[in-house]
Amino acid sequence: MLNMNHRYFLRLSYDGTNYKGWQTQPNGNTVQAEVEKALATCFGRDIPVTGAGRTDTGVHAGVMFAHFDLEKAIDDNERMQFRWKMNNLLPYDIAIKAIHPVAPDAHARFDAVSRTYEYNILTEKNPFREKYCWYWQGKLDVDMMNQAALQLTGRHDFQCFSKVHTDVNNYLCEIHEAIWFQEGDELIFRITANRFLRNMVRAIVGTLFDIGRGKLDISELKSIIDSRDRSRAGSSVPAKGLVLTGVEYPYEVRVER
Amino acid sequence: MLNMNHRYFLRLSYDGTNYKGWQTQPNGNTVQAEVEKALATCFGRDIPVTGAGRTDTGVHAGVMFAHFDLEKAIDDNERMQFRWKMNNLLPYDIAIKAIHPVAPDAHARFDAVSRTYEYNILTEKNPFREKYCWYWQGKLDVDMMNQAALQLTGRHDFQCFSKVHTDVNNYLCEIHEAIWFQEGDELIFRITANRFLRNMVRAIVGTLFDIGRGKLDISELKSIIDSRDRSRAGSSVPAKGLVLTGVEYPYEVRVER
Repeated sequence: MLNMNHRYFLRLSYDGTNYKGWQTQPNGNTVQAEVEKALATCFGRDIPVTGAGRTDTGVHAGVMFAHFDLEKAIDDNERMQFRWKMNNLLPYDIAIKAIHPVAPDAHARFDAVSRTYEYNILTEKNPFREKYCWYWQGKLDVDMMNQAALQLTGRHDFQCFSKVHTDVNNYLCEIHEAIWFQEGDELIFRITANRFLRNMVRAIVGTLFDIGRGKLDISELKSIIDSRDRSRAGSSVPAKGLVLTGVEYPYEVRVER
Repeated sequence: MLNMNHRYFLRLSYDGTNYKGWQTQPNGNTVQAEVEKALATCFGRDIPVTGAGRTDTGVHAGVMFAHFDLEKAIDDNERMQFRWKMNNLLPYDIAIKAIHPVAPDAHARFDAVSRTYEYNILTEKNPFREKYCWYWQGKLDVDMMNQAALQLTGRHDFQCFSKVHTDVNNYLCEIHEAIWFQEGDELIFRITANRFLRNMVRAIVGTLFDIGRGKLDISELKSIIDSRDRSRAGSSVPAKGLVLTGVEYPYEVRVER
């Protein structure tokens, strides 16, 4: 086979505060554009990267994957040097955590079987976590929020939680897990699904939050979902509390440092 | 006794990035000035606060104490409301974690028997911790740095680690503990002493860092201390990695939430 490519997965972390999300935009700084700029400097030519998905403006990633191709394989030692160089080229708010050789047809986006997001609500003022949490001081019925979260699991049409003008064929998503738990001063919502619609996690969190603070009765949740009407669900909570924490593949993506 | 005062300790946390340290300055924003401004709004008159010490520009505090007086005692419920009000008045980067009633003559600065600082060195790029750590990528001989740290413990004249023009009578400090340890991707230096001179922790870290990276031999440490000459010790490391993590009193300062 001629021109056989050598494919690599990048595992990245980024603080999304200063970015218009992952995906390259005509206007505004994006994480993908920064990564491609650094790759071009490293290899002296344009190397496109394909991300596991897009994250919205201001959303963070503890774990994000993206693939790119090289014409020539690089060994362990070269990968270590390449990672070092990339981390020096990239701004402080984007880090390459690992570089992983994969099969030539492995695909960061199409192969991902699920993604996991966490939404952090600060229940006690904490200056050190302000950039990564939404601060809310009132009482919340977390048991009720978990009962509501449980109703979301499984395969449903989630148009009610989707951004209105979006370019998808259908709104079917399968939610594998959706759970609220307290960790120190933070109330965290963790959700894993095969796919997410635009703005979906923040709309779900806003809706469950309304249930938790007694503004919305849990009995209405089913009819909101059935309505497929975004205006019936709760408001989106701020982007800064949202973190992509995992992308799962059907093969091992070795976490090499 | 007439005009008996009712004294309270504030326990605070702050992100020092945007401040010229704790103590009120003629020019520049300080944490103390922000706290006094919020107190004045709460009580409708000026209420001075006395901090446990000063922190330098850009230095953070996980734990800081300050005292202030009221003419009338406030009960548990009033303190809770007062804390809530203060946290809403204060900017996001300063938090009141607790308000603790103390004896009328308890003093946040003079009664403190020791302070504890931690200095964080990131050994792996981490976008989420960049504001609170100094990032350094080279090899460090942590065992050697701990041997050097051990030589600092006890009572010594530490003029060699003090800012040159400072208004102290003597440079004697008793270091109770000085230790390096790894926690995840962070190499942390923890130091407890009865008092700290200006810039002292950052000069100590810079010196031990030079020993760790092989730029300075550990055998020179004693003569550097004996010289009392700041120019012989290592450079100060950046302020952003330094966090005041504790102030210890000989009486219980109840950690009430």
